[in-house]
Amino acid sequence: MGTRKTLSDSSCPVGRALEIVGDRWALLIVRDAFDGTRRFGQFQENLEIARNILSDRLKLLVGAGVLDVVPASDGSAYQEYALTPKGNALFPVIVALRQWGEATLFQRGEKHSRLIDRASARPVPKMVLRDAAGKALDPGETQVRKRAAKP
Amino acid sequence: MGTRKTLSDSSCPVGRALEIVGDRWALLIVRDAFDGTRRFGQFQENLEIARNILSDRLKLLVGAGVLDVVPASDGSAYQEYALTPKGNALFPVIVALRQWGEATLFQRGEKHSRLIDRASARPVPKMVLRDAAGKALDPGETQVRKRAAKP
Repeated sequence: MGTRKTLSDSSCPVGRALEIVGDRWALLIVRDAFDGTRRFGQFQENLEIARNILSDRLKLLVGAGVLDVVPASDGSAYQEYALTPKGNALFPVIVALRQWGEATLFQRGEKHSRLIDRASARPVPKMVLRDAAGKALDPGETQVRKRAAKP
Repeated sequence: MGTRKTLSDSSCPVGRALEIVGDRWALLIVRDAFDGTRRFGQFQENLEIARNILSDRLKLLVGAGVLDVVPASDGSAYQEYALTPKGNALFPVIVALRQWGEATLFQRGEKHSRLIDRASARPVPKMVLRDAAGKALDPGETQVRKRAAKP
């Protein structure tokens, strides 16, 4: 990691986001939090992750304001990890990863979990970037405009 | 990395996606590819990344079918890296990371690059997960349904 450039002062929002969630464990923890996982032992069991790595990643996510440490929901002495509003705002990131995986990384007929719309009990449609009028935008129809240089 | 669980056989599409792009460098390379970067030296200069790490990540992305090695677009002897259709399908992942960064990681008034709709020259609207009728879905309105267990 010694060669890693620090991206947190980047003027690119992608770079700055990846300074926090540019790590598979961080994103798997956030995924599990969306699925209702709240306790250290649950994360550890789901992810089969070493305690020290899990502890480190949880600390980073709490420090970044993605997770909050909260008292156990059942009144026990355990502490739990809950998504903050900033953490909840990662939902499109997790959904986009899921939908890319579904579309490109499974063989035809190969089973995988699905994200369901609770109201209809049907898989959610693909998330699409749209213009202000609702038309789907391809990558080539967009462009990154760098911030203006200082005068 | 010795403690990392292999996720590529995961039945969770998020886990399987992160086996390929659960790495900040991989995602920064893909981001730059969307922005038009095609050559080794350009990636290296943009990312200030060590040559061996860049070389390793490019190889992984080519091996995963995200990038293709193609002849230089100007007819020179250089080889270039181009997003495949599978790579292009990562667009919502990069956009979601960008929009999360924009919404949560910048101070008010702090400058950052923006993703523009070329046709209108205006920033693209926020990407939103919607149900089949077009209604925005909150995380709590969705649920992951595991694949059916084998009988």
